[in-house]
Amino acid sequence: MDKRTYAILGTGALGGFYGAKLQKSGLEVHYLLKSDYQQVRENGLIIQSKDGDFTLPQVNAYNDVNKMPQCDVVIISLKTTQNQLLPDLLPPIVKNNGVVLVLQNGMDIEPEIAKIVDNVNIIGGLCFLCSNKVAPGHIHHLDYGQISLGAYASNYQSTGITKQMEEIASDFEKAGISIELLEDLLLARWKKLVWNIPYNGLSVILDGRTDELMTDIHTHQLVESLMREVVVGAKSTGRIIPESFIETMLDYTLKMKPYRTSMKIDFDEKRPLEVEAIFGNPLRKAELAGVNLQQIRCLYQQLKFLDMRNRS
Amino acid sequence: MDKRTYAILGTGALGGFYGAKLQKSGLEVHYLLKSDYQQVRENGLIIQSKDGDFTLPQVNAYNDVNKMPQCDVVIISLKTTQNQLLPDLLPPIVKNNGVVLVLQNGMDIEPEIAKIVDNVNIIGGLCFLCSNKVAPGHIHHLDYGQISLGAYASNYQSTGITKQMEEIASDFEKAGISIELLEDLLLARWKKLVWNIPYNGLSVILDGRTDELMTDIHTHQLVESLMREVVVGAKSTGRIIPESFIETMLDYTLKMKPYRTSMKIDFDEKRPLEVEAIFGNPLRKAELAGVNLQQIRCLYQQLKFLDMRNRS
Repeated sequence: MDKRTYAILGTGALGGFYGAKLQKSGLEVHYLLKSDYQQVRENGLIIQSKDGDFTLPQVNAYNDVNKMPQCDVVIISLKTTQNQLLPDLLPPIVKNNGVVLVLQNGMDIEPEIAKIVDNVNIIGGLCFLCSNKVAPGHIHHLDYGQISLGAYASNYQSTGITKQMEEIASDFEKAGISIELLEDLLLARWKKLVWNIPYNGLSVILDGRTDELMTDIHTHQLVESLMREVVVGAKSTGRIIPESFIETMLDYTLKMKPYRTSMKIDFDEKRPLEVEAIFGNPLRKAELAGVNLQQIRCLYQQLKFLDMRNRS
Repeated sequence: MDKRTYAILGTGALGGFYGAKLQKSGLEVHYLLKSDYQQVRENGLIIQSKDGDFTLPQVNAYNDVNKMPQCDVVIISLKTTQNQLLPDLLPPIVKNNGVVLVLQNGMDIEPEIAKIVDNVNIIGGLCFLCSNKVAPGHIHHLDYGQISLGAYASNYQSTGITKQMEEIASDFEKAGISIELLEDLLLARWKKLVWNIPYNGLSVILDGRTDELMTDIHTHQLVESLMREVVVGAKSTGRIIPESFIETMLDYTLKMKPYRTSMKIDFDEKRPLEVEAIFGNPLRKAELAGVNLQQIRCLYQQLKFLDMRNRS
């Protein structure tokens, strides 16, 4: 078979980085851009990376999805706060039996995608990437980069490892991106929320870095209590996260360098926060299963207030 | 019997106002002061009030509790954040069989007093007063002033209306202060928390005025949900607050002028917050009864973090 072709919906710190790595490895990649379109069309992409800097002087840049070719794999690397655009963006570029790879935070995005396009294979990806866009078309990759991939099936049934997952893993690994294959996407999404819910939420609400939240005994307890609520939420949907995972996440964070979370960066830049994907969707999912996650709800409502005021 | 004598522990916006009203009505009042001592000893108290301004050029001012006479009624009008001083301040000035009148916010202060002094009658008072200290010895009374009085008995047993309550009510009413007598102090303390917990807490955490918290649908819901938790807390200690009381408090707040809560004012002035009296004590009281007030706990831990950082 010919090499797979890739489309990148959202060419920012994340989509731009992975797209450039794939293109550098010899694959055909098509990039959708908005504000950076002119710059990138004329000058390509600059990747400054701890794994080695490189430049792609020529890239397939578009500012209109209707001018893009249909691709084998469409990577969604927009922020979830722009997902209302997907009904317009996705259908023109998805191939029949193609793959949609959702590299987004939070929960319950895949079922939304499934409503927009059918006869596709949806794969969720959890990115552990530290990367910033420092200028139009100029991305600074600071650390990490691994992606965990899991296939999506209706109602997040566990799928095991699919052929499409293996094919995409092969492409990414050739491009120098480490990949983990997951048998159960939903479990992985809940596990990522064990970290994201307390730290993203409290960093914005309390204007605190991870180290400050861990040093104070009261916020340390609150972090732990929020983690336990995520575990309760996971259980309400049939996914078991072991007690030891909470300890692991707390230890991991204690040992991290002081860190400003991605939601706090969005907040400081006055960008919309991914409150619905990270807080609202898991809350509603647990609620459907009859479980009320009260402290997460408290953070959700506080964040909705702060997000609204921050952008008004 | 002779007229009752009064001591004021904490001559600020609240203690200074009530003390001056009592003295103006002809009672003997002794004031403990700290930073304002020199000014007040030399120049007395100035009360600027919506009920009529007045000056007391001469007052009994002290900077040392051991120089004060024992009084029939000792009014505690310090902030609860200074209550660690009470074991030194109270015993020298309390009369055997005298009254200690606790004009403080929150819960479970009276049992602390009972541990410090025995053979006294402890009365709790809930003040609905809008008053500021604008300069040393100069108090501006803006609005309200009513006090609800309830006697304390071991474990907050309901006492009905006692002789001491009636005597104090009589003194205050002659001084122009409206008094309500309560049969059940604990119920009244819980009811006041129905307002204080959501608005004091969220005003600090979210930097919001009451009107902002009510306009946003998410914080409006959170306020209501926190009020319901207070009602659950009350119930865990055998006190029933009717559902309609929540509606009343919400309506009352919707109709208020935009208001910066007293805890927010303390926070903005970098003064210690009354987190333990208003949040910590009711939390622990409910916990002892086997009930976990999760959203109130979330606010408690957030406030402890913010209070600590605010003063470091």
